[in-house]
Formats: sequence, structure tokens, C-alpha cells
Amino acid sequence: MNESRLAIVKKNLEKMGLEQILITNPMSIKFLTGYYVEPFERFFALYFSLDAEPVLFVNSLFPSAKNYASNIVTLHDTDDPFPALLRAIDSNRDLGVDQNLIAKWLLPLQQEGAATGYRLASTAVDEARAHKMKDEQEAMISSSKINDECMAWLMDQIREGVTERELANGLLQLYLEKGATGPSFDPIISFGAQAADPHHSPDDTKLRKGDCVLFDIGCVYEDYCSDMTRTAFFGEPSDEFLKAYNLVLSANEEAEKLVKPGVLFSTLDQAARSIIEEGGYGKNFTHRLGHSIGLEDHEPGDVSSAHHEPVEPGNAFSIEPGIYVEGKFGIRIEDLVLVTEDGHRVLNHYPKELKVFN
Amino acid sequence: MNESRLAIVKKNLEKMGLEQILITNPMSIKFLTGYYVEPFERFFALYFSLDAEPVLFVNSLFPSAKNYASNIVTLHDTDDPFPALLRAIDSNRDLGVDQNLIAKWLLPLQQEGAATGYRLASTAVDEARAHKMKDEQEAMISSSKINDECMAWLMDQIREGVTERELANGLLQLYLEKGATGPSFDPIISFGAQAADPHHSPDDTKLRKGDCVLFDIGCVYEDYCSDMTRTAFFGEPSDEFLKAYNLVLSANEEAEKLVKPGVLFSTLDQAARSIIEEGGYGKNFTHRLGHSIGLEDHEPGDVSSAHHEPVEPGNAFSIEPGIYVEGKFGIRIEDLVLVTEDGHRVLNHYPKELKVFN
Repeated sequence: MNESRLAIVKKNLEKMGLEQILITNPMSIKFLTGYYVEPFERFFALYFSLDAEPVLFVNSLFPSAKNYASNIVTLHDTDDPFPALLRAIDSNRDLGVDQNLIAKWLLPLQQEGAATGYRLASTAVDEARAHKMKDEQEAMISSSKINDECMAWLMDQIREGVTERELANGLLQLYLEKGATGPSFDPIISFGAQAADPHHSPDDTKLRKGDCVLFDIGCVYEDYCSDMTRTAFFGEPSDEFLKAYNLVLSANEEAEKLVKPGVLFSTLDQAARSIIEEGGYGKNFTHRLGHSIGLEDHEPGDVSSAHHEPVEPGNAFSIEPGIYVEGKFGIRIEDLVLVTEDGHRVLNHYPKELKVFN
Repeated sequence: MNESRLAIVKKNLEKMGLEQILITNPMSIKFLTGYYVEPFERFFALYFSLDAEPVLFVNSLFPSAKNYASNIVTLHDTDDPFPALLRAIDSNRDLGVDQNLIAKWLLPLQQEGAATGYRLASTAVDEARAHKMKDEQEAMISSSKINDECMAWLMDQIREGVTERELANGLLQLYLEKGATGPSFDPIISFGAQAADPHHSPDDTKLRKGDCVLFDIGCVYEDYCSDMTRTAFFGEPSDEFLKAYNLVLSANEEAEKLVKPGVLFSTLDQAARSIIEEGGYGKNFTHRLGHSIGLEDHEPGDVSSAHHEPVEPGNAFSIEPGIYVEGKFGIRIEDLVLVTEDGHRVLNHYPKELKVFN
């Protein structure tokens, strides 16, 4: 159990007027206990109240959990977790639940009257996770360094006839060789008009002259995620492509420049969006500017027009404007930024000027 | 939209006394629509009632969804999904929800009075998914064939000093080369006493004489998962290891022999468990005998003492007894079986007799 992190989460919980919480997001449990497991369908949760020691509910299949928490309820595959849960939860108070708690567990808790009410309380943990400590920052820097190197490798593979899938497979192998434990999400490698789908999955499409080439890639290194995007061109880009590329590049750079403690997440989104709108492509920028990142590739705290909170030191998020033109091309340029005491540090260094291959 | 699958799910829903359902498991949505996306934190759901066309709620980031459903509600990153959801759901009836629906969406629906009540209704879809059609069966057979080949490769790599991580990385590369889209779960490769943790993660441990070697591996091929385990020995196995190995092997074989329509899942578990108990290792078999499998590595329908339903044609599940002795070794032997009209087909063919390497 990481006592200092636990103390921060308890303080956050108290500010929300809550005295107990049930956490089921495995990454939040890892953040607090150091123990990670993907429990699949098995019940796996950390419960604590302000004044008592946390209880970790874990299946007997995961015996090493006992090295991370002193108060453990071990459940066998055929055990019903509810009797032990109902004993732990104070039924005379509201229960904070994390937003990932699934109906499979929440509905029976409600039916059993486990608490007086149920409130979303993930922010108590999310707030703590959103302020990266020094060791977390170092892992993120290293993870993005590997990602930069892999981006350089991908750019070197651009040639007539290569397929999206070949590049994706090569990338996955390279991550492992470089010491990453794997990708932080399924890589997005898109040629030509397929890049107009921001989340296209690599397939057997061959690269041809006249295609844009979009790489949105990330890995996990020492538990922390990287995530970056670059867009290149194979052949002679059209004027329309060049215009759109320069808009995306300006949007990326202008938003990054503004990152420092105090600026609102929504201000960053607006700065990038207004550049693309003024260039006439507002409706082609179909998503928020970015997302927070850390132990998970997407963490709460999005860089969007709906998020009016100020950026704070230790926050880490993506800046990833894009323009998508159906049937033609897609462009996205993405870096991760880490907020420092008086500004920011960009974690990606692979160049952003358009690379044209022939 | 797969109309025949949809009709089956509607019939199941009706049997449960429900008239509407909200499905959020991406694999269940894929099963019904053919469209798959990992939506991360974005709202992604399929709603339907018995008498109206399904509505797919999807983020604008995923434009290709429109090729799979005619009735789509497109949500932007900054949109609140609840107004459209409340318009779709009939507030005068109970709502079936899938067990994966997270509190982030369920609690606000309850607060808004979206329905008269909320009932777990995943089984309406799970039942349909649990009866594999011919094309699904073929994909599962091919997926397990690749897995058998990869198991043979792993066995060939057994030598002094090789690390768990090296083998895991090599396996991941081999899956891609063989046409799989990736692993169906993080491979479990465990040497010696580390195999006593059934879900050990591969690390830099080097193989030494006197270690058992456990490989629990699986891949995804044409959307369908494989999953198998073999245990070998490097050096001279102790009498205790040999005794335990033979118990696990008998438990695996005896349970597999019983698989045919009508036998209870719990009977299979009992058949395997009693052999291990009679051999004196009952408390070392710490998990259920197996789990259903298909689009996901673990699907509802476990092979355990608590599941008293009969096996039916088209069911696919694992048979994986194990014995774990802390500080010493772990043994597990796992095949997938597919239930046929009058018996079963074992999908794994890699030999199960103990292999000893020197």
C-alpha cells in the first residue's frame, strides 16, 4: 500500500463529503497498492473508509496480491463476493463508487441496501493520478523516448507497396526489443483516405503514390504510456493537403505554447480549434484536442471545450489536433506535454515539419 | 446489423420478461452489428426494444460505424449522451442492462428516472454468443491450430538460461507472423516456483535445471480466441512433481471424455476435481475447471461447481485443471473443447504427455 497516495485520496474523498469508497479500476488499485492484475470477470476491488485500513478483495487465483496489502479478502471462483462486501461497507452512509464499477456488482449492492446512496467518486483517485510524481514523470519521459525512436523507424519503412499491417507488426516487435512491455493501444497506421477515419485499424492496404501516411502509436514502459501521432506524405501532396497540414501544425504548436499552470484545458482546445476553423476546416476537426495520460493511455481530464479547469503542475496530456477529409486524407499531429512549475515540457521530439517521400 | 442474431437476442429478452435493453459490451455490440471499436471512456452503446429498430450510440471519432447500423446517434466528445438516451429508452418500463454497464452511465440514468427499474440482462446476448455458429466454429478451430503451432515453437526454445520474457516476446512475434492479430491475453510463461502463481507475468527469470516450465498462451484469429496450457520439465522431475502431473493429466482427460450435450458444467468440474482431491492435492487446485470462450477469451458460462446448467451443442470452453505448490511448482493442462451434436471436438492437439528436457 502506498500510504502517501492513500492519504491524498482520503483527503480528496473528505472534500467531496464522502467517508467510504469502493474502487474497481485495476489501474487505480495499482496506483494505490502497487499490485496490478487484469481480473477479467472476477470481482477485484479496494474498499476503504476514512478511518480504517483498506480491504483488498481478490480472487485466490492471484496469490501475489498478499504482498501488497495486509487486509485481504480472498474469494474463490465459486464464492459470492457480496457477504464480505456487505460486512465491510457501512450501510448507514453513502458509498463513493468509481465510475468503472459495473452493473454486475452495483445493482446487487443497491438491492441489498449496502449503503444509503451511491455517488460517483472516481475523481478522488483521478485527481491524485493526474498529478504525476517525479518517478512517474521519469517513466513517462522514457516511454515517449522509445516512442520517438519507433516513429523514426516507421518513417524509414515508407515505400511503395508496404502494407499497414506489415508496419504495425514491425512496430509491435520493435517496442518489445526496446524494452517496452507492449503497445499502450492498438497502433493506428492509415494510408490515404483510410486516415480520414481517426481510429482506423491497420489492414492489408498497400501504400501507393498520392497517399498520406498517418502513424498514431504508443507503448508502455515501466507501467507508463506514451502516445504520439505524425502524418507524412508519399508522392506529391495536393495544395489542399498542404494547406490542411499547415493548419494542423499551427494548431498543435500554438496550443502547446500556451501550456503552463493556470491556463484552462478549454482555452487550449479553443486556441487550436480557432486556427483550424479560421482556415475553413472547423467541421473536419471532429474530436477534442487531447486527453490526459499516465498509467492508462486515456485518463480522466480531457483537453476539450467542455473542461474549464486550470492545468496544474504534474499534469500530462496530449495535444492532437486533426483534419479529416472523407475519401481523401486525414492529418493529425500529436505530442504529449508534461506541465512543470512554470511552463511545460514536450515529451516528443520527432520533427513535425511535413516529410514527403518519393 | 446481423438480423438473425438480433432475433435470437430479442427472443431471449422476451423470455426474461423484458422489452428493452441497453448493451455496452463492445464485443456484444460487435456480435450483433459486426462493428467493433474500443471506445475507451467514450459512450458507446446499442439500445433496442422488442418492436423497434436498434439505435447505436457512437462517438463521431468512429465514423465507419455508420456502415453497420442504419439508426445511429452520433455523439461528439463534448456532448452529453443522456438527452438522446432518455429519448430512446421507454421510461414506463424496466430496462435490461448488460453487466458491463459502468456506474458512470448507470447512476445518472437512475437519477434521471430513465426506466422503472434496471435488471441485469446480459444473458440475453450471452446465450446467443455461447452457441457458436459454423463460421464462428471454423475461426476457433483455426485460432487453436495457430496456438498449437506456437506451443511447439515454445517447447523447442527450452534451454538453460533462456528467460520468461524472451520466450513471451518471441511468441508475440510468432503470432503475428502466423496471421493472428495478437494474443488473446498476456501470455503466462512461468519457470519453477513462479508457476505456483497461476497468473504469473513473464519476467527476466532464467530457466535453470530443476524448473518446471508452464506455458498458458492464446491468440486472436479472425476475431476468435484460442487458449491452451502445457507444462514441461527442465532437468529431473521429483516424484512429487510426477505424481501431481499425472493427476492433472488424468483430471484433464477424464473431464474431456465426459463432454457432450446434456452433461452439467458442474459435473465436468467435479469429475476433474475429485481425481485431484483423491490424489491428495484438492486444496492445490485453486480455481474452477474452465471458462467459456469465443470473441473474448473469457465469456460467461464457467465450468465450475456452481454452474449447474447442461452443456449444449455449439458451446466452446476450456478444460484446465491445475495443481499449485507454493515455493515448488505449478502444473496446468488446458485444452479448448467445442460441443458437437453428439459429443465434442478437442481443438488442441499438442501432446499432453510430460516432456522432460535436459
